[in-house]
Amino acid sequence: MALIVQKFGGTSVASTDRIKKVARRVAHWKARGHDLLVVPSAMSGETNRLIALAREISEAPDPRELDVIASTGEQVTIGLLAMALKEEGVEAISYTGPQVRVLTDSTFTKARILQIDDRKIRDDLAAGRVVVVAGFQGADENGNITTLGRGGSDTSAVALAAALNADECQIYTDVDGVYTTDPRIEPEARKLDTITFEEMMEMASLGSKVLQIRSVEFAGKYKVKLRVLSSFQDEGEGTLITVEEDKHMEQPIISGIAFNRDEAKLTVLGIPDRPGVAYRLLGPIAEANIDVDMIIQNGASDETTDFSFTVNRGEFARALEIVQATAASLGARGVLSDNKICKVSAVGVGMRSHPGIASRMFDVLGREGINIKMISTSEIKISVVVDEKYLELAVRVLHKAFGLDKKEAV
Amino acid sequence: MALIVQKFGGTSVASTDRIKKVARRVAHWKARGHDLLVVPSAMSGETNRLIALAREISEAPDPRELDVIASTGEQVTIGLLAMALKEEGVEAISYTGPQVRVLTDSTFTKARILQIDDRKIRDDLAAGRVVVVAGFQGADENGNITTLGRGGSDTSAVALAAALNADECQIYTDVDGVYTTDPRIEPEARKLDTITFEEMMEMASLGSKVLQIRSVEFAGKYKVKLRVLSSFQDEGEGTLITVEEDKHMEQPIISGIAFNRDEAKLTVLGIPDRPGVAYRLLGPIAEANIDVDMIIQNGASDETTDFSFTVNRGEFARALEIVQATAASLGARGVLSDNKICKVSAVGVGMRSHPGIASRMFDVLGREGINIKMISTSEIKISVVVDEKYLELAVRVLHKAFGLDKKEAV
Repeated sequence: MALIVQKFGGTSVASTDRIKKVARRVAHWKARGHDLLVVPSAMSGETNRLIALAREISEAPDPRELDVIASTGEQVTIGLLAMALKEEGVEAISYTGPQVRVLTDSTFTKARILQIDDRKIRDDLAAGRVVVVAGFQGADENGNITTLGRGGSDTSAVALAAALNADECQIYTDVDGVYTTDPRIEPEARKLDTITFEEMMEMASLGSKVLQIRSVEFAGKYKVKLRVLSSFQDEGEGTLITVEEDKHMEQPIISGIAFNRDEAKLTVLGIPDRPGVAYRLLGPIAEANIDVDMIIQNGASDETTDFSFTVNRGEFARALEIVQATAASLGARGVLSDNKICKVSAVGVGMRSHPGIASRMFDVLGREGINIKMISTSEIKISVVVDEKYLELAVRVLHKAFGLDKKEAV
Repeated sequence: MALIVQKFGGTSVASTDRIKKVARRVAHWKARGHDLLVVPSAMSGETNRLIALAREISEAPDPRELDVIASTGEQVTIGLLAMALKEEGVEAISYTGPQVRVLTDSTFTKARILQIDDRKIRDDLAAGRVVVVAGFQGADENGNITTLGRGGSDTSAVALAAALNADECQIYTDVDGVYTTDPRIEPEARKLDTITFEEMMEMASLGSKVLQIRSVEFAGKYKVKLRVLSSFQDEGEGTLITVEEDKHMEQPIISGIAFNRDEAKLTVLGIPDRPGVAYRLLGPIAEANIDVDMIIQNGASDETTDFSFTVNRGEFARALEIVQATAASLGARGVLSDNKICKVSAVGVGMRSHPGIASRMFDVLGREGINIKMISTSEIKISVVVDEKYLELAVRVLHKAFGLDKKEAV
């Protein structure tokens, strides 16, 4: 008998019929003697509907009030799911985030969980009830309703699992696990049985939208055993996200090929190379709340330097406007921009102990005539920016070159 | 400068455009220097949508979980309205029922308010904010979310007005006041400038759906000055509901003609007349949670009695089934039933000091050939049950007979 936290995403609870299916699945686990805490998202489309209502009122909705509104999506689902469980003959009770005291900071629309009061939940579990807690939400110390930002239900589930010291946190989603790459691009992509937290974080942040990155971080920090499973298949072990590399077996060097289409690149040419240039260029971008991904600085001559960075494509126009103004004031030679790019990354903890992966990657891409525009590396990841039109080709040749189509990877 | 509670019903906040209109109206009052507490209902149709979702899951939804779901309707509106107020340049903040500690008992789906903690509200008002509180909801002492039942937002508004000792509680609705009868049936119906709480309670309970009856009761008890106004007209004083009869002027004997189409009648014939018969007949009805309206018992002979009562038409079939079983077990001669009836009532505090109103009413109906099937009277109300087909005729002749079409009533 184990204590299991199960999180069901929006598509898993998209209709009352699907909620009934989720209830049957939970009832099945309960019948096997487990204690269950279930964290559902809002029915898919519901959060967008609520935010659209708010935007009809205000172009820049007040964040506190936006959270009051957006948090209702999950509140509806917990009630429906608890009812559906009772229909299955399982005792169940629902709680909103504020009700179980999921205490967060006061950063409305992207609050962080500070603490969870587990008393109510433990009492209910001890009484044999399945506890259904709304994901995505909490309350600050003054009782204001907060939400955790998009995908926040994953974080709620992991935080609850950590607070309750659960045996496993299962994330049910519309895929049956984490793949070596997107099967829509590479049909030979394989489901991974295990992946490390570090790899998962790189995969998630690079656009494999299986899990919210913050939840993975959280799970790694609190050593929560995390498993990604399909809501739509009854069988399968999914992918287990492990705290550290399995020492018993030879790790594959590369676990997966991630990619992100949603990038745009800006380059400032010939800036007088003085200390503080990077800050003066990126400061105004940060002030405008635009996230910067890759950053590269390259001396162009003794006196000037070229500076490139990438931003989310949706923020490209705004970023370009800001950079053009800054570049002019810094006396730069000009600004280049490109929003038809993509980022392709090879991820794997194995590369720590295997040098030469980067040059192999560049070689493979070069043979296909794919020009590399930017390179950035970390301990377990090598990312390149290439023309968007090469995305599929780059993913496929790298997937094959690193042997990810075979059970025994290179 | 006054403290005013304003309640806006579902049709007043049916769309984001209407919410913006409400915000402009509130801003207008605020600009005149008043302190404002605003209580909106859910957007019209929203509560029904939520309950329909619950019914897709369960034919008899768990009441606690139903409240978790149903309370989200108002939660969305308070957020939208607070945003809309900010767009109008008015500082505003929203609270759910549980957030301001609207403490209720634990009777889910029809909870009663026990106490309201006014501290947060007073602080916000003192800081110059308009406070927007969700109607219809609260929390019990264990923090469970509760709702007050249909029309409960009226009760929320009145309870908040009482707790804050507000100068006036304004109920904005889709009519511009309380009428002598439904203008759709009698075009000569007049808006009343004032009506007493007692009369209003009789009017409300008899189907003039302007105000929830419990809110009127509450307002009377706590001496809250209550006014019914139109959301859709900027001018007009509406109808003021007064604590007691205005001693300075001659009261009209009859203030209005109310009616209710939604009734059905059951008669048990020839029950052996023994003590406890009424209880044995109505006990099983009450256990089935069916509300009984009028009750009449009439001795048919020395040994047997006839017993009639009315129920809501939606519960007619269920009530009939129960009564047939009970009647058989009591040895009654038979059961008659009629679901094509209606109730028409004359209401007025003036009838206390004017005898003979009942016989006048029967005379007026008799002259039109309208057969009376049941009669029931209270101190300020005379109700008759007649064939449904006579409803409009009965309302019109009584309205005229009691001079309600004239400013100076009889």
